[in-house]
Amino acid sequence: MRKIEHIGIAVKNLETSNLLFEKLFGQPPYKEEEVANEGVKTSFFMNGPNKIELLEATNPESPIAKFIDKKGEGIHHIAFDVEDINQEIARLKNEGFIILNETPKKGADNKLVAFLHPKGTNGVLIELCQEIK
Amino acid sequence: MRKIEHIGIAVKNLETSNLLFEKLFGQPPYKEEEVANEGVKTSFFMNGPNKIELLEATNPESPIAKFIDKKGEGIHHIAFDVEDINQEIARLKNEGFIILNETPKKGADNKLVAFLHPKGTNGVLIELCQEIK
Repeated sequence: MRKIEHIGIAVKNLETSNLLFEKLFGQPPYKEEEVANEGVKTSFFMNGPNKIELLEATNPESPIAKFIDKKGEGIHHIAFDVEDINQEIARLKNEGFIILNETPKKGADNKLVAFLHPKGTNGVLIELCQEIK
Repeated sequence: MRKIEHIGIAVKNLETSNLLFEKLFGQPPYKEEEVANEGVKTSFFMNGPNKIELLEATNPESPIAKFIDKKGEGIHHIAFDVEDINQEIARLKNEGFIILNETPKKGADNKLVAFLHPKGTNGVLIELCQEIK
């Protein structure tokens, strides 16, 4: 857990929200990317050492579509940068956290990712992410 | 907007959640502080260039008590570090964002703070915060 890598925000319309966050940060997203296996289109804004990821669902079964149905637009997850994702998964499992996928999967922005169940983290969906070298 | 200064997480019981986040980060909070005018007790964890703030309501009228009533425990706000809060308020107001308090107020951790209305920011409660020198 070296820093907040990014905060993921669920949005209904990526294009509209890109304009909004461009006003907020004074600069456009540095990339857009579709992650087909998660059913999302994403965009990324740089903010110093951190990033903001906007996520729009590409189908009604996407976790982002379900999140927006239940809670509306807003913060979806916090991702922490880790040096060795398998080591962090083992450490956190040992501490009693529930890992949603013990085998890291390929996420957006060239990362290996794993999620902790929000039931064990005060309602916060936490992502571990390790840069793929 | 120089970086994510901290993420604020609403919790029911600060003591219990301190133990949980101590396990997550592998270190205890570096400070605890009550902010009487906001009706909250807070604790802060360092995570590289960023912080995590846990917030427990100290009375039923506290914004944190109302948040938990409505949405349950979870992420309450994102705070961005700014160099000059008055200048950022003016810039964002000019861009059409709704500022909840145009006069910055004293927040936790030696900061001047102002909030943007989540209605104008995709449902995300955004705090601007400037270190008091």
